[in-house]
Amino acid sequence: MSIPCDILVFGGTGDLALHKLLPALYQLYREGRLHNAVRIIALARRPLPRNDYLKLTERHCRAQIARNDFDEEVWQRFSARLDYFAMDASQGADFGRLARYLGEPGGLTRIFYLATAPNLFVPIANNLRLAGLADSEARIVLEKPIGHSLESATAINEAIGAVFDESQVFRIDHYLGKETVQNLMALRFANALLEPVWRNSQVDHVQISVCETLGVENRGAYYDRAGATRDMLQNHLLQLLCLVAMEPPAQFEAEAVRDEKVKILRALRPITGQDVQDKTVRGQYSAGKIGGQEVPAYYFEKDVDNDSDTETFVAVQAHIENWRWAGVPFYLRTGKRMARRSSQIVIQFKPVPHELFAGGQVNQLLIQLQPDEHISLRMMTKSPGRGMRLAPVELDLNLAQAFAQTRRWEAYERLLLDVLDGDSTLFMRRDEVEAAWAWIDPILKGWEDHFQAPRTYPAGSNGPEQANSLLAHQGRHWHL
Amino acid sequence: MSIPCDILVFGGTGDLALHKLLPALYQLYREGRLHNAVRIIALARRPLPRNDYLKLTERHCRAQIARNDFDEEVWQRFSARLDYFAMDASQGADFGRLARYLGEPGGLTRIFYLATAPNLFVPIANNLRLAGLADSEARIVLEKPIGHSLESATAINEAIGAVFDESQVFRIDHYLGKETVQNLMALRFANALLEPVWRNSQVDHVQISVCETLGVENRGAYYDRAGATRDMLQNHLLQLLCLVAMEPPAQFEAEAVRDEKVKILRALRPITGQDVQDKTVRGQYSAGKIGGQEVPAYYFEKDVDNDSDTETFVAVQAHIENWRWAGVPFYLRTGKRMARRSSQIVIQFKPVPHELFAGGQVNQLLIQLQPDEHISLRMMTKSPGRGMRLAPVELDLNLAQAFAQTRRWEAYERLLLDVLDGDSTLFMRRDEVEAAWAWIDPILKGWEDHFQAPRTYPAGSNGPEQANSLLAHQGRHWHL
Repeated sequence: MSIPCDILVFGGTGDLALHKLLPALYQLYREGRLHNAVRIIALARRPLPRNDYLKLTERHCRAQIARNDFDEEVWQRFSARLDYFAMDASQGADFGRLARYLGEPGGLTRIFYLATAPNLFVPIANNLRLAGLADSEARIVLEKPIGHSLESATAINEAIGAVFDESQVFRIDHYLGKETVQNLMALRFANALLEPVWRNSQVDHVQISVCETLGVENRGAYYDRAGATRDMLQNHLLQLLCLVAMEPPAQFEAEAVRDEKVKILRALRPITGQDVQDKTVRGQYSAGKIGGQEVPAYYFEKDVDNDSDTETFVAVQAHIENWRWAGVPFYLRTGKRMARRSSQIVIQFKPVPHELFAGGQVNQLLIQLQPDEHISLRMMTKSPGRGMRLAPVELDLNLAQAFAQTRRWEAYERLLLDVLDGDSTLFMRRDEVEAAWAWIDPILKGWEDHFQAPRTYPAGSNGPEQANSLLAHQGRHWHL
Repeated sequence: MSIPCDILVFGGTGDLALHKLLPALYQLYREGRLHNAVRIIALARRPLPRNDYLKLTERHCRAQIARNDFDEEVWQRFSARLDYFAMDASQGADFGRLARYLGEPGGLTRIFYLATAPNLFVPIANNLRLAGLADSEARIVLEKPIGHSLESATAINEAIGAVFDESQVFRIDHYLGKETVQNLMALRFANALLEPVWRNSQVDHVQISVCETLGVENRGAYYDRAGATRDMLQNHLLQLLCLVAMEPPAQFEAEAVRDEKVKILRALRPITGQDVQDKTVRGQYSAGKIGGQEVPAYYFEKDVDNDSDTETFVAVQAHIENWRWAGVPFYLRTGKRMARRSSQIVIQFKPVPHELFAGGQVNQLLIQLQPDEHISLRMMTKSPGRGMRLAPVELDLNLAQAFAQTRRWEAYERLLLDVLDGDSTLFMRRDEVEAAWAWIDPILKGWEDHFQAPRTYPAGSNGPEQANSLLAHQGRHWHL
């Protein structure tokens, strides 16, 4: 059971709160992971009777949680701990009201979860300070994106840092809460077999793909200003890259782990000038079909500019300039409206130095995050029968099957509990966020400087052809 | 289709011929792998009408071959190519008769398969020469054991070498015909992932076990003179050890592969003097239960001496003194009447150099030859749920399932075809056999010199307790 606390969810009527956070809190409560005296206060502008908010939340919890995990009696107890507080997060006066509502902390830790638009981060932090709510025990959770450039991210971090100590700030990247992503660290650092081959002498290249079939849904207004690079590459994909590439930390502990991650971000070779043309591909989806259904082009999506040149796809060839990874390309790509939903990391090993047997020698470690969590190792074996012909086989590990007895934790459940426990290991430190932006900025600038419009790709395809050429030039191809 | 040839099976009424060789030849014939003009002549002392021999063979083929692989029409054609010739292999005169029966070779290759007691190898070879049957095209196949000591093996090899060139001699070890054993080479030399860790820096130790539940069956007279060391360790287990340990050959070709194997045998640290006590365990089974059935002690078996001190179990801790394996123990064991039938090779990797996560870090590659052919890799993954707890998982490859569409070849089918093709890669070269005996001799001598009686173990157990101590002293244990 965790500390006694008030959990304040700003943006309490938003998708994130209703789809993810409140169901996660319900689950934690159900499993006795929350303190009995916990209070969960959803905050949003809309005036809404508490009962209406409870009903709204119950509906979403029931929808998100597996039927036999939802327990009526638990819900009664949980919802008794849940309140709704209508306020305008940009109005200082409302924070005074909030402070009075909350009363004296009296040993309670206040956790402020900012599930809001990022332009509210700084006003909320400042208002919390002014209202006397930002004491040294408080914690603040920020959702991506932290800014839209190095400059804006630094400004946010400065402003937040003026109110909260870095140890109080939890910058969430829910990818880091995924079982398979954490398993990546277990795989790397708990298997003596992998560490010696996890380097440029044995690894040919690495692929990190996050492909979605969804379009921008209700997020057009935000997305059209952000694009795939800011929305996905700067955070999720670079975080995955860090976990694949980082040196073994001396301890599995917040500062040690994040020190190693930031070293990777700082070792990324800057992509500037002509390299922006050669090593990156921007794409934007045109009309097409997803699962047999016609879907419109990006620029016809709700809240998207009709002549938008925002990218909905980005592919990058990155290089890490350090001892372990010199010469090994890291191919990153992410896109919306692609042929299939699939997030995966592929470690492609080099062929054997000398071919004894015909048949091609491919070793590959595939770590799939979505749609199902899955690890497989492609090895070569002898094909049965006469002679020494090789055949690839997959040594498979379906994590869901392997641990069928164990409940799968949602990323947000795990991360919320880490916040309550004050464990920052899986959260982005300020310098990480800024180092990531420092690498992203020149790419964005390169596109702007050269007026590089995105290549179109039909919805339901694998992205623009140029993304394939990025690898094909080097005799490689994206893993399907 | 292979060369036109006469295949002469000495010991044609023996178990090996009837259970293994003739069914294998039938299968090869059925698949069109034998030349149409092939003649198969079974030779044995017992006068037997051809028809009786055909019936005997048909019965055994039907018993050995899966029902839907047995084809009446093929059998008719196959049996038309099969003859029986009664002769005494120790009588020179009978070889003159055989030569007249065979007629002029006329382009046919003669293949002499000596499925006989080893004391007949030399007389048969000499008689073949005297009868003019050992021409430069002929091939001779010898079953283990080649001798019972270095001296006797050398004498046999000398005598055979006086009649046949080494390239004409095929010393068979049917373990080398097993799919999984050959797969060991594919695994090692076609997977860039394994080679860097296949050495003393990463491997803690290796186990090679061949455990049988059978007793000596009808082989008491032979076995009681041989024992487990001569019958299994000198050949099968040392061959497996060679394949695990050898350096990558430059070509997958008979001389290159066997050069590497013999280098391993010659690099085995001799076990002499006190080491025979410390590094080896002899055992003999006493009465016990196998699968719920009472079975008698070894010394009550048919054709076994009542006060026999022959070992039916042997375990050895071997060391290979070369660059790759210095300091890595190779634990070998084989026994009869053990708890379960299981032949397996275990590569136990060292733990990670620095434990980041609690939970023990065990990497293990298991190559199972019997009862089913199976490869699995034990890795550590994160146990689902909160925190970083590790759990071992098996990445599994069931070869039979992976290649369910492909017919599994019997070891003898493959090896017979290799003889017909003149490919010696999977056969033991003279120097290999002698190097193996050179290492075995001092162990046998050490037991004799110290009158070391075998330790008893109950039938149906895992061998004598001392075999466990061999590993336990070093904090290790046999894989179950």
